[in-house]
Amino acid sequence: MINTIFIIGMAVFAASSIYFFFASSKPGGINKAFLVSFVTLASYTLMWDGAFTEASSSGQPIFWTRWLFYALSCSLLMLEIAKAKGISAPGKIAELIFLNVFVMGTGTLAAVSLGLTRWIFFVLSSIAYIVQIIPLLKTRKEDANWINTTILMGWTGFPLVFLLAPTGLGLFSSALAMGLYLALDIYTKIIFNIQLKDQ
Amino acid sequence: MINTIFIIGMAVFAASSIYFFFASSKPGGINKAFLVSFVTLASYTLMWDGAFTEASSSGQPIFWTRWLFYALSCSLLMLEIAKAKGISAPGKIAELIFLNVFVMGTGTLAAVSLGLTRWIFFVLSSIAYIVQIIPLLKTRKEDANWINTTILMGWTGFPLVFLLAPTGLGLFSSALAMGLYLALDIYTKIIFNIQLKDQ
Amino acid sequence: MINTIFIIGMAVFAASSIYFFFASSKPGGINKAFLVSFVTLASYTLMWDGAFTEASSSGQPIFWTRWLFYALSCSLLMLEIAKAKGISAPGKIAELIFLNVFVMGTGTLAAVSLGLTRWIFFVLSSIAYIVQIIPLLKTRKEDANWINTTILMGWTGFPLVFLLAPTGLGLFSSALAMGLYLALDIYTKIIFNIQLKDQ
Repeated sequence: MINTIFIIGMAVFAASSIYFFFASSKPGGINKAFLVSFVTLASYTLMWDGAFTEASSSGQPIFWTRWLFYALSCSLLMLEIAKAKGISAPGKIAELIFLNVFVMGTGTLAAVSLGLTRWIFFVLSSIAYIVQIIPLLKTRKEDANWINTTILMGWTGFPLVFLLAPTGLGLFSSALAMGLYLALDIYTKIIFNIQLKDQ
Repeated sequence: MINTIFIIGMAVFAASSIYFFFASSKPGGINKAFLVSFVTLASYTLMWDGAFTEASSSGQPIFWTRWLFYALSCSLLMLEIAKAKGISAPGKIAELIFLNVFVMGTGTLAAVSLGLTRWIFFVLSSIAYIVQIIPLLKTRKEDANWINTTILMGWTGFPLVFLLAPTGLGLFSSALAMGLYLALDIYTKIIFNIQLKDQ
Repeated sequence: MINTIFIIGMAVFAASSIYFFFASSKPGGINKAFLVSFVTLASYTLMWDGAFTEASSSGQPIFWTRWLFYALSCSLLMLEIAKAKGISAPGKIAELIFLNVFVMGTGTLAAVSLGLTRWIFFVLSSIAYIVQIIPLLKTRKEDANWINTTILMGWTGFPLVFLLAPTGLGLFSSALAMGLYLALDIYTKIIFNIQLKDQ
């Protein structure tokens, strides 16, 4: 079941990588939409392989490598969101990327830890996430306010799934968590980039 | 004993994170003082957990993850020092950050290695550190010369403790090393940022 | 045999580090030639130590850490090539470095994986490499066209050796692979930087 989800993820992000590679290349710029999909394809390949996993306290597999790949892919998404929102101060953009790496790094540590340590890292990661998104949400710009929905309904879904899955409270299985993460990945990394392009 | 030091470190850097979060936020800039403290809080949490340690040749625990976190936090301190000293050439700043990551990366490898390899990495890390700080020390600017004291008495304390602790010659215990590192962390990451702000 | 190759690599890159440190320092800029050699010296030291290796399916040692160090050193080479070719758009340079980190990251994963996963990562890494070098090769600039030879004969040699060595098809031994990588390292990291300087 989990394997099937990962194979679907590989197929979807292989397709979106090809699509964005040909759809969005601008001379002199970063094809961020392509790179985000391509990094996510690599991430699903590694999870499908299954070599780098931990067992949760209930024996469910924890695929912690996903958070390391998000440190790369979501930094690019941060650049896209900052640009769309008209945030151009280099200091602010550097802070957004630094916070993203910190959020994903402490998220990885939360995923591989058990007990109290896990919760401390979850709290530290969540605080950094809130510090990261508040200025993004507050920066209002016509034609870019729809991104707030992506952040609140998409990005925020990841820590919620983390909290309810075997990585956290263990209220549902790893398989369901992987399915929800895939839906969130498609929403925040593919649909988002299509919406961004359509404007 | 070591655990108590780490808990003190967590408490101190949790407090300084809160302080700098509210004290130093400037619109459009990076709140570097906050981020340095917040990263250090995560570092102490991981050392307190104790999951990622190696045993020295004498059986003392080596908490090597601290050096990985310094790759993040000290890169921010580098930005602060460069700015205070009036160093603004992007090439020079990129070199300072690259060297810092190299110093901490080879420092991590020195901490996890034994025998001759450890000493080679210690020497490589030290050479990179000297290459890194010489231009900083040489750049003299009124109101910023006090930073040379922080570098020479604070930053340079880390490789000295590394050399004398079980990571190196083993002249004193891991517990004393952890206490000295904590004092140096407070000096170079909290007191430094308060001094910088007061100017 | 492999150990001797690594010791030669350490000696060669220690010598080139010293040479480039004194030969190419420009005020305000990054001494990229020195840093590339210094990072490679650290890489050979770690491979010589032998602590971080995997066994291939045929039992040959895989020194996968080399690819992590290339993420650092080849990003600097990318900056040098972009500059020599007159590519200065920050977005393009950021994309080159991002792609380089991705190429080396997936290369590392290919090196530590076996079976189908290895080949998927090899293909993903190769695609990213092609995406990375095509715009470099296409950007023609008098006095910089010789760099195309370095890329096509030097850089491209690395995935070819990977493919034929125990990391891939296993047509020759790890020892020969290490010798060929050393020759390629000397060509792309030392001779290249001497040629660049001579212009």
